[in-house]
Amino acid sequence: MAFFPQNEGLFCESPKPITLIARHLHGRGTWLRIKRLSSATPTASPPTSKDSIVNLDAGDPTMYESFWKGMGDQGAITISSWQTISYFSDVTNFCWFLEPEFAREIRRLHKLVGNAVTEDRYLIVGTGSSQLLQAAIYALSPSDTPSPMNVVSAVPYYLTYAPLMDYLRSGLFRWAGDACTFKGDAYIELVCSPSNLDGFRRQAVLKSEGGKTIHDLAYYWPQYTPITNPADHDISIFTVSKSIGHAGSRLGWALVKDTAVAQKMTKFIDRSTIGVSKVSQIQVAKIFKVVSDSYEHPIPENPNKLFDFGRRLPVDRWKKLREAVKASKIFSLPEFPSETCKFTGEKAETLPAFAWLKCEKEGIEDCASFLRTHKILTRGGSYFGASPNYTRVSMIDRDETFDLFTERLSSLH
Amino acid sequence: MAFFPQNEGLFCESPKPITLIARHLHGRGTWLRIKRLSSATPTASPPTSKDSIVNLDAGDPTMYESFWKGMGDQGAITISSWQTISYFSDVTNFCWFLEPEFAREIRRLHKLVGNAVTEDRYLIVGTGSSQLLQAAIYALSPSDTPSPMNVVSAVPYYLTYAPLMDYLRSGLFRWAGDACTFKGDAYIELVCSPSNLDGFRRQAVLKSEGGKTIHDLAYYWPQYTPITNPADHDISIFTVSKSIGHAGSRLGWALVKDTAVAQKMTKFIDRSTIGVSKVSQIQVAKIFKVVSDSYEHPIPENPNKLFDFGRRLPVDRWKKLREAVKASKIFSLPEFPSETCKFTGEKAETLPAFAWLKCEKEGIEDCASFLRTHKILTRGGSYFGASPNYTRVSMIDRDETFDLFTERLSSLH
Repeated sequence: MAFFPQNEGLFCESPKPITLIARHLHGRGTWLRIKRLSSATPTASPPTSKDSIVNLDAGDPTMYESFWKGMGDQGAITISSWQTISYFSDVTNFCWFLEPEFAREIRRLHKLVGNAVTEDRYLIVGTGSSQLLQAAIYALSPSDTPSPMNVVSAVPYYLTYAPLMDYLRSGLFRWAGDACTFKGDAYIELVCSPSNLDGFRRQAVLKSEGGKTIHDLAYYWPQYTPITNPADHDISIFTVSKSIGHAGSRLGWALVKDTAVAQKMTKFIDRSTIGVSKVSQIQVAKIFKVVSDSYEHPIPENPNKLFDFGRRLPVDRWKKLREAVKASKIFSLPEFPSETCKFTGEKAETLPAFAWLKCEKEGIEDCASFLRTHKILTRGGSYFGASPNYTRVSMIDRDETFDLFTERLSSLH
Repeated sequence: MAFFPQNEGLFCESPKPITLIARHLHGRGTWLRIKRLSSATPTASPPTSKDSIVNLDAGDPTMYESFWKGMGDQGAITISSWQTISYFSDVTNFCWFLEPEFAREIRRLHKLVGNAVTEDRYLIVGTGSSQLLQAAIYALSPSDTPSPMNVVSAVPYYLTYAPLMDYLRSGLFRWAGDACTFKGDAYIELVCSPSNLDGFRRQAVLKSEGGKTIHDLAYYWPQYTPITNPADHDISIFTVSKSIGHAGSRLGWALVKDTAVAQKMTKFIDRSTIGVSKVSQIQVAKIFKVVSDSYEHPIPENPNKLFDFGRRLPVDRWKKLREAVKASKIFSLPEFPSETCKFTGEKAETLPAFAWLKCEKEGIEDCASFLRTHKILTRGGSYFGASPNYTRVSMIDRDETFDLFTERLSSLH
């Protein structure tokens, strides 16, 4: 699940309001309350001075802007005003709002990368992966059960799972917390792999005949982790935002084995939003095509390739971050295994979209609060049911933001 | 509320399955079940022969295609691949996913048409008006109440209101049926005006201190009804699909008076889909601009104007329909009042997007079923809690479909 920035919650109170942010923003009266929340700071714009707030709290994938600017007009689309009138994209498909070209390019991209089995799988499009997660939970929850289905995930899980499951107080499903301590047969286990906290691979921890599993594979792409085999789960959810960067297009997709589940997911999206933006699907189909073409039919004038860029930049960033951590002497980072990536054919280290930073200095118990006093905004460990010694730092923001972060971090002792 | 086609439910069983439709479609195994439902027939494509099925069951606004084709490149947009990376559209607005240009053009269009007060109103964008309706109900339902808030509407109401309120079995709100018979103080009344059944204006029937009202103004545009004054309600919901035709772009907007309600609606859309497609907003902002420019800065090369087209065509269609009804001698239609439209300055008749057709012939108790035997698909009165003598016919489909319909209708005796 992407879960950024808003499923982390513009509205979740952060432990310590950032009053200094308020000075940087202008808005309506009660927007002041929101402006005081770290994830409401303008990650959409880079820092303007050495003294600026560095906001790496959310996961806005603005790192990808420079790549797409480098691609020039290749990914551009022109849409005629009469193109998106009808509700229907494909009346021969029960997922009637799925644009056929979008579906073709998704299957083509998975085949190229080798990160998911698409043969004999239903493809369901959603308005971002968060809608698809809700659709999958709706589809897996019996409608005739007297008590809600339990939705669980292994700790450390993303704390926003809870409000996402419970914000409508559904009688069909409810958040039931840590999968590791869950007892019972009736459950849906969410498995986010690689983890959207620390980047490590995850597997389902529960096994039961009555249990169901949903795999959130938002980060199972070569830029973040070695591709070891094509994912082949009952329900696998992917998102455009973390695969190619276009979070603002609000698109995700699910690969689903079971017909009834795929139909019920379609029904959920039908009820929830009467389908999914055709314009976004047309745009992203074109961009997926550019990505696949760059590998299958490269053109000499522009040798840029998304996943090459997506490896190169994080390699450099993780190197810089580890140097800054070393220089500071008060932080530490997890070490990751290296494996052979079947897509690149090379041995590759895991390079998560987020750094799980730990403050080792005695007397500092809350890493995020300590960084906040230095105007570095991150997402504290307590958000994930982990120790506040840890904090999560986005690694996929713009260069200016990331460079200012490592520069400032290395100066902290 | 638009509520077409999918909130009417691809999945709602129609009284009598249309097996003959199945021959026209090809799809996966269980899609056969869906193909048997009238609203699943391809309204996205016009009839191919005199003998074709005429599907006027849903409300696919394909009538507008010919207008936008006539506008040539004026409404076209080109979007660069790097344009929609960030989640954020406007970090100075608590509705952080609202594209400023889209907001500007909405306010400009309302000012031009005079159909809604926008000054000192919050503007919330949604993935179609159905998401906004759910957001508004969420916003108006107390989170600390022991029993769900009652959502009501005056009969005849659209039967899909019920599943839309209840599909998640929320503990916050529930469908409570007919507003006219509702007793109590705690309710949310949905007022769809003009009605999405018969085109008549509606007003709230309940009045209570504890009661709330949501106005669905999808059809309050000059092509359907005379504009008599700017709507000024606590919550007014509009949709792109019925105003300019672009149902496939999945956009709607709400004008909201109260800050806390607007924030809670934003929070719902944040949780539900983490915002709204930027690409759709960029496209529709451009199309709104073309519409407003055509009135405020007309160009001699292309004098076409959306609302002029939107009046001209329905005037012609309603004339043809009344002639067909007269020729058949077995049907009747409601008569509508004429009023001066403040937008056109002319006396104008109400020309609803749907015809509420009644079969007067003795022995025919189910009008929709009778028409179905003649391969005319409509939405029977029973869907609206009304007599099956009535059926609802879409007036906003393509010319070919509409002409075939009136031709066939006039031949029925």
